[in-house]
Amino acid sequence: MEKVTVNLSKSYDCLVGENLLLKTGELVSEVIHPCKAMIVSDDNVFPLYGETVSKSLEKSGFFVNSFVFKNGEEHKNLNTVNDLLKTMCKAKMTRSDIIVALGGGVVGDLAGFAAAVYQRGIKFIQIPTTLLAAVDSSVGGKTGVDLEEAKNQIGAFWQPSLVICDTKTLETLPREQYACGAAEVIKYSMISGDDFFTKLCETPIDKAYTDVILKCIDLKRSFAEQDEFDTGVRMFLNFGHTFGHAVEACSNFSILHGQGVAIGMSYITKIAENKGICEKGTHKKLVALLKKYDLPTTFDYNREDIKAAVFVDKKNAGDTLRLIVPVKTGECRIEKVNKTEIDNWMNCYE
Amino acid sequence: MEKVTVNLSKSYDCLVGENLLLKTGELVSEVIHPCKAMIVSDDNVFPLYGETVSKSLEKSGFFVNSFVFKNGEEHKNLNTVNDLLKTMCKAKMTRSDIIVALGGGVVGDLAGFAAAVYQRGIKFIQIPTTLLAAVDSSVGGKTGVDLEEAKNQIGAFWQPSLVICDTKTLETLPREQYACGAAEVIKYSMISGDDFFTKLCETPIDKAYTDVILKCIDLKRSFAEQDEFDTGVRMFLNFGHTFGHAVEACSNFSILHGQGVAIGMSYITKIAENKGICEKGTHKKLVALLKKYDLPTTFDYNREDIKAAVFVDKKNAGDTLRLIVPVKTGECRIEKVNKTEIDNWMNCYE
Repeated sequence: MEKVTVNLSKSYDCLVGENLLLKTGELVSEVIHPCKAMIVSDDNVFPLYGETVSKSLEKSGFFVNSFVFKNGEEHKNLNTVNDLLKTMCKAKMTRSDIIVALGGGVVGDLAGFAAAVYQRGIKFIQIPTTLLAAVDSSVGGKTGVDLEEAKNQIGAFWQPSLVICDTKTLETLPREQYACGAAEVIKYSMISGDDFFTKLCETPIDKAYTDVILKCIDLKRSFAEQDEFDTGVRMFLNFGHTFGHAVEACSNFSILHGQGVAIGMSYITKIAENKGICEKGTHKKLVALLKKYDLPTTFDYNREDIKAAVFVDKKNAGDTLRLIVPVKTGECRIEKVNKTEIDNWMNCYE
Repeated sequence: MEKVTVNLSKSYDCLVGENLLLKTGELVSEVIHPCKAMIVSDDNVFPLYGETVSKSLEKSGFFVNSFVFKNGEEHKNLNTVNDLLKTMCKAKMTRSDIIVALGGGVVGDLAGFAAAVYQRGIKFIQIPTTLLAAVDSSVGGKTGVDLEEAKNQIGAFWQPSLVICDTKTLETLPREQYACGAAEVIKYSMISGDDFFTKLCETPIDKAYTDVILKCIDLKRSFAEQDEFDTGVRMFLNFGHTFGHAVEACSNFSILHGQGVAIGMSYITKIAENKGICEKGTHKKLVALLKKYDLPTTFDYNREDIKAAVFVDKKNAGDTLRLIVPVKTGECRIEKVNKTEIDNWMNCYE
């Protein structure tokens, strides 16, 4: 078992290793006294790992309840949060009790938000069971749910007390989910300023889960520690996301987040190359890596629709976009682009 | 115009004076650049002051929208929050925009919570229009809404950027609402360690609104600054609330919060006197003051029901209650009471 310690408004460990679920109770009780624990999961994940986690927690003295909701982003909303909070209230949970989020990003975001607002905040544990959640949403404290009108529109910064990533759970991931996680891993490799990109070209992620996840968490830790509330350098983590989110939105979210990010990275890299900002050949190398995971790299939505979606994104308020633009593999920079110049940028894609 | 500056995780001013609503825009623009402002209010208060506040904000360059919901505690829930957040999203509000809470405690709590969670947190202004909100809920950053199962079960600590209390608005308060505020004012006088209690006995609150409100806010500031997240001395503000909340709950909330607090203060003071903790005559003096505002001082609920309601309260988790017990007028102390001893305490009421 390896670990990364994150020092934000709260300090906590992210544990990565094989078969950690079997030791959930033991690991959790090292940071939290036995109490009531509400496992929050979805109907895909709970049947696979619910019993293991539950039994382990009970063995360590926790009183376990569970709340299982229907899988899918469309259930990440305030209605589900309301149901969860009522269930917690009925279980007479207090400020000393905890939530255990067992699942992918949807589960972690929603459960973390419920923890942030139940009785003005209780502790929670993240147990990510997808690669995407392991390297991205489970670390850094961004929690939230969607409004019909926009994703992650409601939320809080609320840090977990512990993150447990059992790499065994990733082995059962559907190919498409695995690829979505790979897209975020590749994103990290494009901003990490070292040979991580080269390593990814040589070794498939699932052949080196522990190393790759540790590396990604450590990068996220480093950006989040410098900028917990996402007003500065944490923006680098947004590489590929400006156009990626827009593509997702234009597809009515039939394109998954990781797929959108893959397209967004490819798109901005091509533009950067054509504008002479980025080293020639970078786009080709990036696309080759994305293709190894069957990730899409182009889109065919109307340019005006993409632009409208970019402008609606909550990250893009004000007159200026801050685009994360690659200089070469492993290195990006922030470009401030006035919204009036966006056509100029998009023209460079051809 | 007088002010108290509160230094919590955020520093902000509480302004108290006559006719401040007319200067809302000017006062707000001193702390926040003109932006979109969503006035949140209820259908009692908005018809009275909505236009004044709106016009003043517009005059200072704010783009004003409003969200008015039906008055009453029963609407302080996640459904109303959801409607408000959607309205904000439709108005394309971003992280640089603000909420202006115009109303009593229900409005301030709900609007503050919406501000805490919209796009993971935006700024908000409190404009309390009841005495209770002015001296209590508008300062200190406790925001939240109710679940059917329990009050304030969902919430966040989220500080306002400015509190504007126009004492003119208090002149139109229904007598019962005025009395509820008075109960909280009297509570402050019982824990403030000086001659505030004596002053209240001499001068009716509505003859000295500015002084009284400043004094109460300053006390709340002092307790909250020592203990923002309510785990220590802030507990003193809970004087009268342990049994007060229970009485409210037993009445199915037909007894108002201030009335419950009045009953709770009287109850614990009588017990403290009978136990020899409190100076003789304190209960009589307290009841005489409460009676000036037509506040109730006794209840006739079943003792077992009261006990059950005390134990369900989120503040009373664990085996030990922390009761705020008077020693004399103006001075209280914290008594740790094991839940098994509560009968013993309640027996002392006779």
